[in-house]
Amino acid sequence: MTALLPSPRRLYIQEVSVRDGFQNEPIFVPTDTKVDLINALGRTGLAKLEVTSFTSPKAIPSLADAEEVLARIERVPGVEFTALVPNVRGARRALMTRLDEFNLVMSSSETHGLANLRMTPEQSLEQFREIAAVVDSRVALCASLSTAFGCPFDGEVPPERVLGLVEQIVHLGIRRLTLCDTTGMAHPRQVYELCARVVERWPEVELAAHFHNTRGMGLANALAALQAGIIRFDSSIAGLGGCPFAPGASGNVCTEDMVHMFEAMGFDTGVYLEALIACSRRIAQIVEHDVPGQVMKAGLSTRRYPVPEGLRKPSG
Amino acid sequence: MTALLPSPRRLYIQEVSVRDGFQNEPIFVPTDTKVDLINALGRTGLAKLEVTSFTSPKAIPSLADAEEVLARIERVPGVEFTALVPNVRGARRALMTRLDEFNLVMSSSETHGLANLRMTPEQSLEQFREIAAVVDSRVALCASLSTAFGCPFDGEVPPERVLGLVEQIVHLGIRRLTLCDTTGMAHPRQVYELCARVVERWPEVELAAHFHNTRGMGLANALAALQAGIIRFDSSIAGLGGCPFAPGASGNVCTEDMVHMFEAMGFDTGVYLEALIACSRRIAQIVEHDVPGQVMKAGLSTRRYPVPEGLRKPSG
Repeated sequence: MTALLPSPRRLYIQEVSVRDGFQNEPIFVPTDTKVDLINALGRTGLAKLEVTSFTSPKAIPSLADAEEVLARIERVPGVEFTALVPNVRGARRALMTRLDEFNLVMSSSETHGLANLRMTPEQSLEQFREIAAVVDSRVALCASLSTAFGCPFDGEVPPERVLGLVEQIVHLGIRRLTLCDTTGMAHPRQVYELCARVVERWPEVELAAHFHNTRGMGLANALAALQAGIIRFDSSIAGLGGCPFAPGASGNVCTEDMVHMFEAMGFDTGVYLEALIACSRRIAQIVEHDVPGQVMKAGLSTRRYPVPEGLRKPSG
Repeated sequence: MTALLPSPRRLYIQEVSVRDGFQNEPIFVPTDTKVDLINALGRTGLAKLEVTSFTSPKAIPSLADAEEVLARIERVPGVEFTALVPNVRGARRALMTRLDEFNLVMSSSETHGLANLRMTPEQSLEQFREIAAVVDSRVALCASLSTAFGCPFDGEVPPERVLGLVEQIVHLGIRRLTLCDTTGMAHPRQVYELCARVVERWPEVELAAHFHNTRGMGLANALAALQAGIIRFDSSIAGLGGCPFAPGASGNVCTEDMVHMFEAMGFDTGVYLEALIACSRRIAQIVEHDVPGQVMKAGLSTRRYPVPEGLRKPSG
């Protein structure tokens, strides 16, 4: 009866709102506010926090305070801190901070790579190699593979192409990988099939999935990835985020909605849902616009309403 | 590799926006507008349309024009027309129209039944028996079981209780059944397990699933129901709808988002997605407020964006 769903086990939730979310906001969130939010998130039981980016401050001014943020945040034992590192220059800056992981990003598709990173996938792989050469063993490297389920410019990205890129990434010695549905094009069958192939072929790789809810399929895709054996998930509180180079894309999968679903299903995410929702309410105040998160509005599914007054069995 | 997902097959999409959606709007949608919308929906390939309710016009004034709507709409061959029929009085009114199906609604839980229908589940079953006695064989009866996955007042609804109610419904000779997650409390494991038990025990029953996206799990639950063998799904264009007696509940699963997911996965819903999205845009204009539908905003996942001008491989 329960054959289709994996047995309850530990899942790892990786929060990207402070980087992926704030990067897409038109305002500069003050450093104090970022530090407070990261410190609060660090106490919610999340496994990993992507806290900033070492992109050029000119390219992404909203994250220009990367060093200061990293110098000031509290380190919570058991919580990993990561940041986006786009190139060797960024890696050298990041090496001066105490990060557990560098998140290296490349596109699976040529046009998205050129539009978003000004690099073809091949050029990105060369960057990865150069970054890996300057990083010492105290820092883990994670490769995030954008548009792994489809490109808004080039369309379909064949699974064989993705598998070929994964092979080259693994060949560089990188043992953490995130398959990203950057603009919400993935559907559950595709997610299941691609994730199952990567899990099967590279069992030694710590594989994560990163979905967007652009077309409403975010949690259905997370479910399909779970069924394929994925236990690590990127997400963003309140559903914040998107991709500025993929018009129409809106919102990463919402962390508290995903945690709520997994916990209801009997999985242990390690996350204190109430504390997480408090962070979501805070981030909604920070960005000053409506956010896509559902559970923060509706309450948990265990929420009970008082029985309406005067309610009684009608006679007859 | 694909063992977890059923092979592509025909699915049947049952549209509830005109009844379930409009019932919850504060405005009275003019009869002309309803008729135009139903006629447009009838040409989109949907399998069934719930077009109105034979509840007392005093109780639900927004659907007081049931007879006129049914007299004026076009009947499309292959499309079933159904309406909510709450009691024998409503059934006698409905019998004067040309409906293919009467949708009988009851709650799985006592307090929701009393709050929403002023009937306990036992009293509802007695009503079903009385309605079945006055209906002739030209009309199919469908029983919709509200709060089958949880009650906002009483909390958990044990699956054994739901199975017991299904048994009594089937015993009345009713061969169509909808399991409803009225206030969005269901999660995918629960959906899979309960649906699989009903499918297995009553293979002769035409079983449908009705989900709400209140906590973001709508499409994940639809996926789980599909995996359990369900091929009929209620939904509402633009995600319109809710339950006035369950505060906090917002939005049925969005029809076009669900159809988009199923079609991307290779299932045949029979629905022309573009025509359906045109209806969703129309309904958003009618209700004059923001609607939850995602695909109507983001476009299909096959949407392509023009390659940004001046994009070229950087040298090096």
